[in-house]
Amino acid sequence: MAIITLTTDFGEKDHFVGAIKGAIYGELEDVRIVDISHNVSPFNITEAAYIIQNAYNSFPKGSIHIIGIDAELNPENRHIALKLDGHYFICADNGIMCMITSEFIPEKVVEINIHNKIETSFPVLDIFVKVAAHISRGGTLEIVGKPIDDIKRLTGIKPVINNEENQIIGSVLYIDNYGNVVTNITRKLFETIGKGRPYEIEARNYKFKNIYERYSDAINFNIEKNKREEDGKKLAIFNSADYLELAIYKSNPLTVGGANSLFGLDFRDTVTVNFK
Amino acid sequence: MAIITLTTDFGEKDHFVGAIKGAIYGELEDVRIVDISHNVSPFNITEAAYIIQNAYNSFPKGSIHIIGIDAELNPENRHIALKLDGHYFICADNGIMCMITSEFIPEKVVEINIHNKIETSFPVLDIFVKVAAHISRGGTLEIVGKPIDDIKRLTGIKPVINNEENQIIGSVLYIDNYGNVVTNITRKLFETIGKGRPYEIEARNYKFKNIYERYSDAINFNIEKNKREEDGKKLAIFNSADYLELAIYKSNPLTVGGANSLFGLDFRDTVTVNFK
Amino acid sequence: MAIITLTTDFGEKDHFVGAIKGAIYGELEDVRIVDISHNVSPFNITEAAYIIQNAYNSFPKGSIHIIGIDAELNPENRHIALKLDGHYFICADNGIMCMITSEFIPEKVVEINIHNKIETSFPVLDIFVKVAAHISRGGTLEIVGKPIDDIKRLTGIKPVINNEENQIIGSVLYIDNYGNVVTNITRKLFETIGKGRPYEIEARNYKFKNIYERYSDAINFNIEKNKREEDGKKLAIFNSADYLELAIYKSNPLTVGGANSLFGLDFRDTVTVNFK
Repeated sequence: MAIITLTTDFGEKDHFVGAIKGAIYGELEDVRIVDISHNVSPFNITEAAYIIQNAYNSFPKGSIHIIGIDAELNPENRHIALKLDGHYFICADNGIMCMITSEFIPEKVVEINIHNKIETSFPVLDIFVKVAAHISRGGTLEIVGKPIDDIKRLTGIKPVINNEENQIIGSVLYIDNYGNVVTNITRKLFETIGKGRPYEIEARNYKFKNIYERYSDAINFNIEKNKREEDGKKLAIFNSADYLELAIYKSNPLTVGGANSLFGLDFRDTVTVNFK
Repeated sequence: MAIITLTTDFGEKDHFVGAIKGAIYGELEDVRIVDISHNVSPFNITEAAYIIQNAYNSFPKGSIHIIGIDAELNPENRHIALKLDGHYFICADNGIMCMITSEFIPEKVVEINIHNKIETSFPVLDIFVKVAAHISRGGTLEIVGKPIDDIKRLTGIKPVINNEENQIIGSVLYIDNYGNVVTNITRKLFETIGKGRPYEIEARNYKFKNIYERYSDAINFNIEKNKREEDGKKLAIFNSADYLELAIYKSNPLTVGGANSLFGLDFRDTVTVNFK
Repeated sequence: MAIITLTTDFGEKDHFVGAIKGAIYGELEDVRIVDISHNVSPFNITEAAYIIQNAYNSFPKGSIHIIGIDAELNPENRHIALKLDGHYFICADNGIMCMITSEFIPEKVVEINIHNKIETSFPVLDIFVKVAAHISRGGTLEIVGKPIDDIKRLTGIKPVINNEENQIIGSVLYIDNYGNVVTNITRKLFETIGKGRPYEIEARNYKFKNIYERYSDAINFNIEKNKREEDGKKLAIFNSADYLELAIYKSNPLTVGGANSLFGLDFRDTVTVNFK
């Protein structure tokens, strides 16, 4: 049974997502539809790329991922479908695939060209669903599009390495549900540049000299619970997606605040790693 | 396999929606449950009507739509089930069906009368799910209710036309996820009254002389990207539901603000079209 | 077909929930995944317990409930799986099961011990999904864990009865989507202690002498609609989960405010019942 996932900035109040699911069930009797996220910040391609990159590969190979962010067709925004790492993606060519395509080379990319048959101002509903249904039925990408060689890249979302190779200048890529601050510095980059040297991470006025593997590793459980300094404990961690993250232990953005508000860090702010 | 959709103001935190889905799976082994929206503003029937109207008809005919807004049974709020445009709807008779029934005449309406067997303070769970399961199994509406002739209408959600038929006085029907402002003026009404005449749309201090078909149509892509006036571009559009909408190009309510905050427009505020 | 439900504090924006669903579909071809809630306040075990308790028993017996709150494995937070009231639960042993286990004695509890094979910082994805898949396939709890005798209890979430047994000192357990204030006083406790005596409920400066069965019962429908005092009507009710709730009739937290803001009541604040 086919799996079709949805990642959009449509929110969960409007009729958009319901309409799309209805259209999918109209095309396909046997299909599993999975919401990855509909709460991407409007038009925030970087956020969407981070979410998709860290969700898609938990799905079985052959899954079809519809991405509905900034998807209106215009002269600078083609619609594409691609096969990549055994998965299918249908989206606008606005840079959204760059995080995945920096690791995997697409097996095939097509520019969708079924628009001449369909006049629409809601392309995710009217175009992307049709393409997804076509792929679900075993159809090839060439039937719905024209092969193309390259796709758009996002600039400015990769960290910069200095010439001496002892500094990584990264930035905030994502703020998660706990207010934790995810940087664009991957464990792989960190280890490649760091080569095991000691380091200091700087973000605004805060410094970190350890990167933990789990949040709990920052806590000393040998000390009695009421004597431990757990609350509001600041820490750096490689998160489960293997990105460097600045966090507060058991933070709650709704009450005491998350790492983002406590550190004063927002999307795109700088986080630096200095190796000694 | 039956499709049952859910549209409610229950939100997505409480146990209500989960309990309803559990009850549906308890009644029916083979069913696809689709959330249309659980984020309707509490008791906002107009919002719910707009969402339902624009989502339901993407679903296959025969789908069953449960609407859980203001559904407590009381002397002024009967429970009804109806067949309309090939779809089934189960809801309270509080005016919520008026937008759909203004276009389609119900094939059948019944007042649900299985309450004497079921004492409940959670009718969506205990009554509506049972009615939906009954319909899914091929049962008729008459088994669960008594045929009635008419249902409640909402007043005040339709635009007013002046005597000279050169002015439509509409109002804000809905604010979408991008902060865009949807009015109650449909393309059909606009064209019927306007008869192709030039027009000016007024909302507070803002005026619009063009209605676009797509958001991107407001942008001149022949101008270089960094010289274009894209950011914060104000525009009027017939949205994908064919309602007149006042929008900001690629707005983000979380950061720069949406059309609603920038134009100072809220639910029920006036939007006027003057034809010349 | 197996049913697996998810209750977490992961929110609905991040990739976490999508990744978990992908992993479940990777393990099981035929399964129905149901979101109970992903909007539990971060690390709020009491909230999660209330939600789970009131959702799980609408599901068919044999359903598997994954609870992803405060689930990182550490010396004080074991992972457990239990069979209780015909349902399976997989969670951290952090007190979350206490509300259900105060009513039902678990048929079996095991401490999950498959961690030695799996190194992870995302245990809900890597451990809980595997355990759920194992149970779905008919596997026994003993294969994935070691039987244990007891689980952690939450303190401080139960109401206190005075020595004279004429007073219940309860507290706020949950604020629902309408801003209504759910206390930890159940109908059962109320009736056991009250024995039919008259009572007065006190919360801050507000007093209530009636507990309704439905919200509408607070309204006199014999009075004409425009002369009734409906708007902002304060009331006490046993809600559909049979907990004492302080509410505003048809409140909207987004506009006029909910009971929580109007009464000035927050999570853990005191609500007292005095019997005469």
